Amino acid sequence: MDILADYLASSRNAREQQLAAYLRFPSISSDPNCREALQECARFSAQLLQEAGLQEVTVWQTPGNPIVTASWRQAPGRPTVLIYGHYDVQPVDPLSLWISPPFAPRWQNERIFARGATDDKGQLLMHIQAVAALLHSNGSLPVNIIFLLEGEEEIGSPNLPAFLEAHRQELAADLAIVSDSSMWAEQHPAITTSLRGLVLLEVTLSGPNRDLHSGTYGGAVANPLEMLARLLASLKSDEGTVTIPGFYEHVLPVDATIRKQWQNLPFDENKYLETLGIDSTWGEAGYSLLERIWSRPTLEINGLWGGYNGPGGKTVLPATAHAKLSMRLVANQDPETMAELLQRHLLAITPSCVRIEVQRIAGGGHPVTIPLQWPPMQTARRVLEESFGHETLLVGEGASIPVVADFAKLLGVHTLLIGFGLPDANTHSPNESLHLPTFHTGIASLMALFKAL
Amino acid sequence: MDILADYLASSRNAREQQLAAYLRFPSISSDPNCREALQECARFSAQLLQEAGLQEVTVWQTPGNPIVTASWRQAPGRPTVLIYGHYDVQPVDPLSLWISPPFAPRWQNERIFARGATDDKGQLLMHIQAVAALLHSNGSLPVNIIFLLEGEEEIGSPNLPAFLEAHRQELAADLAIVSDSSMWAEQHPAITTSLRGLVLLEVTLSGPNRDLHSGTYGGAVANPLEMLARLLASLKSDEGTVTIPGFYEHVLPVDATIRKQWQNLPFDENKYLETLGIDSTWGEAGYSLLERIWSRPTLEINGLWGGYNGPGGKTVLPATAHAKLSMRLVANQDPETMAELLQRHLLAITPSCVRIEVQRIAGGGHPVTIPLQWPPMQTARRVLEESFGHETLLVGEGASIPVVADFAKLLGVHTLLIGFGLPDANTHSPNESLHLPTFHTGIASLMALFKAL
Repeated sequence: MDILADYLASSRNAREQQLAAYLRFPSISSDPNCREALQECARFSAQLLQEAGLQEVTVWQTPGNPIVTASWRQAPGRPTVLIYGHYDVQPVDPLSLWISPPFAPRWQNERIFARGATDDKGQLLMHIQAVAALLHSNGSLPVNIIFLLEGEEEIGSPNLPAFLEAHRQELAADLAIVSDSSMWAEQHPAITTSLRGLVLLEVTLSGPNRDLHSGTYGGAVANPLEMLARLLASLKSDEGTVTIPGFYEHVLPVDATIRKQWQNLPFDENKYLETLGIDSTWGEAGYSLLERIWSRPTLEINGLWGGYNGPGGKTVLPATAHAKLSMRLVANQDPETMAELLQRHLLAITPSCVRIEVQRIAGGGHPVTIPLQWPPMQTARRVLEESFGHETLLVGEGASIPVVADFAKLLGVHTLLIGFGLPDANTHSPNESLHLPTFHTGIASLMALFKAL
Repeated sequence: MDILADYLASSRNAREQQLAAYLRFPSISSDPNCREALQECARFSAQLLQEAGLQEVTVWQTPGNPIVTASWRQAPGRPTVLIYGHYDVQPVDPLSLWISPPFAPRWQNERIFARGATDDKGQLLMHIQAVAALLHSNGSLPVNIIFLLEGEEEIGSPNLPAFLEAHRQELAADLAIVSDSSMWAEQHPAITTSLRGLVLLEVTLSGPNRDLHSGTYGGAVANPLEMLARLLASLKSDEGTVTIPGFYEHVLPVDATIRKQWQNLPFDENKYLETLGIDSTWGEAGYSLLERIWSRPTLEINGLWGGYNGPGGKTVLPATAHAKLSMRLVANQDPETMAELLQRHLLAITPSCVRIEVQRIAGGGHPVTIPLQWPPMQTARRVLEESFGHETLLVGEGASIPVVADFAKLLGVHTLLIGFGLPDANTHSPNESLHLPTFHTGIASLMALFKAL
């Protein structure tokens, strides 16, 4: 360990500068003006992998932004680890709220501030630097490693599934690791053991064949906006339970150990309310707040529109009303089945005075549960605890990371979701930052994890 | 009557040409590019009044489009009639659906096609030509007459109430006549005996202090769109009855004679449904369709919006949700009281997980009921029956004509609402037209009415 410790200490500054260089690319995947920056950032990612000592470094062009792969396969008989990360970043607006320019990294209070610092360039670089440190110090790795970096995560990874299908053999691995989530708190490591799935739908209600005068027709002709409000309101009880028959039918209960862990998490609901600026939460009765987000399916209205929304008033009874809906799914719920369930229910309850159309919106994915008994999970918990000096907390995540479901489905591997972001890292917001002590401790913990696997 | 009959017959073509000249002004009050055309049309209106033999013809500038007045006050001891009309017109889009240009009048099938032909240039010109015919033939009128023409009716008459207040004395009259509505059918005259009132409000529901990720927060934090749908849905029962306590408290029942008239009206509900492209109507149980529109208050959603409405999906749990609401009021309901009632009710039923703000939107007005026993009403019924050869039907109107409430409130006069438009005149739609036989018979009926009053 002496060579390794020396290397880590002496390279600390250079490794932070490497991160800063990576953060200077404005690799915003949703911005068409950043296409070239994304190409450059992909080439820079390849260079980082090359310099780390990885082999078969390849930049794959796609209809969108490139996918970058690399590998090191010289540990026969040892497991193969697939490491995923993304070099694209969220947009930066509102730019005026940034204290320093989002692509000009700034050091302050043991943090580095820049877009992508935590999500996800900083976290994926931790894996590259951990591999580099091991190869530099030992000349070899304790496991086989495959890197898979994409540049379209923030826009829904449109080209990744096809790539996974086409490269199943080269990507074959025993486990995957994704570091694109958060610690519970500074020094409190966390592993995410479940992700919710997602289905998106759009509903259109049509009434009269044209917009009508609400004075001349109001009270006689069904108003699609009103009928839509009635339909949507009927989908949940006053206790927040979804009323669609069969909605909860396939839901698996949460593992008792996990449930116990969640109950003991130091979760401060008052602080949660304060951060969001609300007086109380609302959701399915009979479940704690964390259970509702991490282990219960839900139905949300993501958009609602129709009629007049300009200044002043307009006495219109509109011809149509629209809503975008999404369902978050949990263990054992199938997106196709659930989409049909909602579709059928809406059709069944629509009154004859209006017509309904329900269409799937592209995107979404299956829910994911990583079994607690899976050995790499046990190993990772122990290693992180040793590195950070605090118990590794098992948490859930209400959002979806479709690549994790794709890894399970297309490559047949479970994923370790080990996050090194801090809750106040402002990912997706102005003044994103990465906590540097966590960065360095995390790199050491990853090296330990590779050895222990 | 011989001179008069001769005059009407010999001037028929000239009077239709006069109408065509009036229709050539593109006097669209909602279009800022038409400001000069409205000025010209006001001057032309004044010229028509002058040529008819009226006196004190005046074009009054306002912050918007001019108001034009004229009078003839040489019948001492006889009643004074205030005739209201508007020379501004609706927009013409979609222009592509017009068979001929909207401001190039075209004769076809006993009709003249142009924007404003029925609403309202054609109808107001009938009054001017009736007065002109009487003055030309007899040198005098059987009543005193005041004309009041405005150029902002289609944009809510923003400058009319102040004008009425400022000119109460000059406008003092015994009754008002407004011809800006429809016959029941060709040859079937109709008098409108009630108009609904109107109150407009805007509702904003606020939840979290920013848009949230619906995966990370969905199921835990109240979604303002969902809460708004629940609030709005709760305002009506499944039978279409408004559930706001006190909503129907001040509603006066419809006069038995009127109710009987309505029951006997040759109303074809199937044709109504077909025209609107709907399978069934929806509204307050226990009332006929016409009763619901003409004599029952209602609550409508005129606009609803929040969250994402672009292409594809966006998993957002939005910070706010918005609705524009309006209430149509009937006899004895006060706009102020009803606005407060709705406001108080919404505040009372809003759950603590969201905040609500309810604001009045400018506009609206009191409901109007013209008493059946009012002598001019009886006279007008009889005269119209004699002129058209069919019973004069008494109808209601679900929309509001604020000027009628203003005449009652500011000038203390009732209004005869005598419409000469035909139901298929396409007012507010492409290919608006005026039925010329009705135009000419209507002019004769107005002359008879002036004599009979």
